[in-house]
Amino acid sequence: MSKLLAVGTVAFDAIETPFGKTDKILGGSGTFVGLAASQFGVKTGVVSVVGGDFPQSYLDMMEEKGIDTTGIEIVKDGKTFFWSGKYHNDMNSRDTLVTELNVLETFTPVVPEEFKDAPVVMLGNLHPLTQASVLDQMNERPKLVVLDTMNFWMDIALNDLHEVLKRIDVITINDEEARQLSGEYSLVNAAKKIHEMGPKYVVIKKGEHGALLFNEENMFFAPALPLAEVFDPTGAGDTFAGGFCGYIARTEDYSFENMKNAIIYGSNLASFCVEKFGTERMEELSKEEVQTRLHAFKQLTQFDIELV
Amino acid sequence: MSKLLAVGTVAFDAIETPFGKTDKILGGSGTFVGLAASQFGVKTGVVSVVGGDFPQSYLDMMEEKGIDTTGIEIVKDGKTFFWSGKYHNDMNSRDTLVTELNVLETFTPVVPEEFKDAPVVMLGNLHPLTQASVLDQMNERPKLVVLDTMNFWMDIALNDLHEVLKRIDVITINDEEARQLSGEYSLVNAAKKIHEMGPKYVVIKKGEHGALLFNEENMFFAPALPLAEVFDPTGAGDTFAGGFCGYIARTEDYSFENMKNAIIYGSNLASFCVEKFGTERMEELSKEEVQTRLHAFKQLTQFDIELV
Repeated sequence: MSKLLAVGTVAFDAIETPFGKTDKILGGSGTFVGLAASQFGVKTGVVSVVGGDFPQSYLDMMEEKGIDTTGIEIVKDGKTFFWSGKYHNDMNSRDTLVTELNVLETFTPVVPEEFKDAPVVMLGNLHPLTQASVLDQMNERPKLVVLDTMNFWMDIALNDLHEVLKRIDVITINDEEARQLSGEYSLVNAAKKIHEMGPKYVVIKKGEHGALLFNEENMFFAPALPLAEVFDPTGAGDTFAGGFCGYIARTEDYSFENMKNAIIYGSNLASFCVEKFGTERMEELSKEEVQTRLHAFKQLTQFDIELV
Repeated sequence: MSKLLAVGTVAFDAIETPFGKTDKILGGSGTFVGLAASQFGVKTGVVSVVGGDFPQSYLDMMEEKGIDTTGIEIVKDGKTFFWSGKYHNDMNSRDTLVTELNVLETFTPVVPEEFKDAPVVMLGNLHPLTQASVLDQMNERPKLVVLDTMNFWMDIALNDLHEVLKRIDVITINDEEARQLSGEYSLVNAAKKIHEMGPKYVVIKKGEHGALLFNEENMFFAPALPLAEVFDPTGAGDTFAGGFCGYIARTEDYSFENMKNAIIYGSNLASFCVEKFGTERMEELSKEEVQTRLHAFKQLTQFDIELV
């Protein structure tokens, strides 16, 4: 069975949307990546940290889904990372209400022995030095390293970010962040500049407007499935990345052609994630539902043009 | 040869973008629709009005492209409709600097005898009563009526707009206007509401984010081709609509499946339109360029997914 190593947060989220609000529920980039990857039957190890307040039942759920949680450190006298946010009516923008780093503040990821040979590594949105330290622990250079980052790290740790970018294959980043990182407004030009920083593959996430995959002169686009209702966008980007990595790990094919399928799978899974609060939809998601929606993605995008 | 009747403006535009500015150049929805449709070798008649200040050379150019200009009334002692706008740095928003309606103020479209049996009719963005008067002049109900409109008419002539919507097949509208017309934020729900107003087909234009085609439970998405530089977005929406109508008129196939191709063709032509100021790029566009870019659209969107 192929292996996927994912480093990211395992957290509590409290979310408010126009449809309702939650108390503290399960969240975190590592959690969403793991749940998405679990769809592909790959051995996924999540490296993260939680506090003594983190329910064993959440860890049990993850293990049941086939996620290896031995890399999730439990700091008994610490508190789990907590984020709270409120989405605006358009669901595209949100205000962060609370960020309590807690145990994340001193997090030093330790890669379990069993995952030091994972061919696919997903470096979730953390400090670039933390991301680099995961790569340092691998037995050999993984076949594919995927990195997610955000504007916050560009603001406070740009040099460290540039260093780790030289060591990765795929960057996933949203459109505004791609513009900030590259200084280019056009996403085509932004991708070119980011290629020069290291990553051979650049995935630009545009939320409800889909995602673009760039590889030198090649370009591919996966739309987001238009939905009647977006209930809670939290975790959609991480689910997208987890679907991408899970599909690549399962197929062990690192070509551009196969990455097209991977971002379609990522978009597909993300379209489920937003249908309920937090991880709820991803926990109950069946293979049949995924296949049915994959068919919808084909209907949405495939054409057989008549030249005239 | 199949016929297309297009009613719309033939105008002077003065445009300012971050790349430069123009004096009064050729513009107008009817012009862009006609130029796009001319790619398909259909007999396209444009119904519009210009003033005595409108150069004969522009009319000659249109005739050379195969556009029938007998429906363009020339008001000798009047002035041609003039619009001037300035695009912001992101090219997605613009300020209107000048709107001089001039001869458009009293425009009553007269459909030439030769086009009263056109199977495809494109009602460009004009007052809904003006659009309806074109339909009144047709010998019989055309096979396909496409209507473009904007928020302005929703604000000042909503009842008239609702009346004409009952008489058409396809509405093309941008995302914000679809939301305004339907009162629904989700574009899926907006399309449903608009279906109920009459149009069996709803095309929602999202500018650089592509276009969605809805028909009851069916949905198709055409991306906009990501470009390194968007030079001048003026006319892109009309070029999209002209490509859509031209393709349908040429193929005489009014099915949803064929409309998929039509919106891909529309997106394709629009991607050229924005590369130069005004109509310049569309005037010089070759069939070979169109075919090459059609291949790029396929590369951008087509995948052959492995189920796992």
